Amino acid sequence: MARSGDFVDVRVQRSKAAVLAQTYELLSAGGIGGVSIDEVARRSGVSKTTIYRHWPSRAALLIEACSTIGSAPPVPDTGSFGSDLVALAEALAEQLRSARWAAVLPSIVDAAEREPELAGLHADLHARLMAPFGVVTERARARGELAADRGPADVTAAVAGPLFYRRWFSREPLDAAFVARVAEDALGHLGV
Amino acid sequence: MARSGDFVDVRVQRSKAAVLAQTYELLSAGGIGGVSIDEVARRSGVSKTTIYRHWPSRAALLIEACSTIGSAPPVPDTGSFGSDLVALAEALAEQLRSARWAAVLPSIVDAAEREPELAGLHADLHARLMAPFGVVTERARARGELAADRGPADVTAAVAGPLFYRRWFSREPLDAAFVARVAEDALGHLGV
Repeated sequence: MARSGDFVDVRVQRSKAAVLAQTYELLSAGGIGGVSIDEVARRSGVSKTTIYRHWPSRAALLIEACSTIGSAPPVPDTGSFGSDLVALAEALAEQLRSARWAAVLPSIVDAAEREPELAGLHADLHARLMAPFGVVTERARARGELAADRGPADVTAAVAGPLFYRRWFSREPLDAAFVARVAEDALGHLGV
Repeated sequence: MARSGDFVDVRVQRSKAAVLAQTYELLSAGGIGGVSIDEVARRSGVSKTTIYRHWPSRAALLIEACSTIGSAPPVPDTGSFGSDLVALAEALAEQLRSARWAAVLPSIVDAAEREPELAGLHADLHARLMAPFGVVTERARARGELAADRGPADVTAAVAGPLFYRRWFSREPLDAAFVARVAEDALGHLGV
């Protein structure tokens, strides 16, 4: 009996993994709008009934698939706020140029504008991707390198703002000179 | 004969206007992803065949409908670069809080990531919305108020970047204090 139970469980795990893998593929290729349960079922070979047994809605499936899509840039620890900002800006720019999440995030931002369930997904992903800014800012504060009236939200907006703007809105290249200038300017008004 | 020709022409103009109006409605409510030719036909009462006679593709229809969706913030002319930046940041923040295009732009950014025809639409809309930054920057340059190594692209990234970031990514409120600080910080590193 135990053996038969294990077997069923392995089969369920395999189906779930196949569904998540196909959702992730569709998401990477076409954004949130590219994911339909019909297409996930067709590609994974798992029936729609089974998919809906595991995830009550398309949003629930998207939330689980997105939980693995973005890994934050590494947290630098160079010993100074200025060098940490440069390292963070460079790492973020590199991800914006090539990471999978960079092509998918606009579709998640768009979904967050109209679907409350997906706004939660967006908030979680955003918090995860921007977490290193919080760590760097708190270290700078502890060392007395941060202007008294500034906090993590200002630091993130000052660095990620211009980089995001250039990646998705003006669509200009994120060249090294621009990235260095963004970090330098941010230090100019956020540092003491 | 002239009268009959006029009549046909008026009818064509009415059909086209109805199609564009419904496309605009769907776009405002659901972003680019919310616009299908089927739904536009159903709502406007204009047949798909007729729609495709006027616009060869969904992209062509979207391009014409979007050409009216965003009006740029007004161009300030206060006489100084600093006050112009404050006025521009405030006007842009106000549009981000309430203008129709602010809810639609993420879907256009997403479409631009994957559909070349819609990347052109995005580029046109972006250029129109950001044009006042170019005017303000060139005036500042003529008055000798702009740092020698900076140009319109830097000014736009420094002001629009943090505002866009906050509107669509961190989704924090665009309060007056934040907007004022963005303009002040930008002047700090862009002015002479």
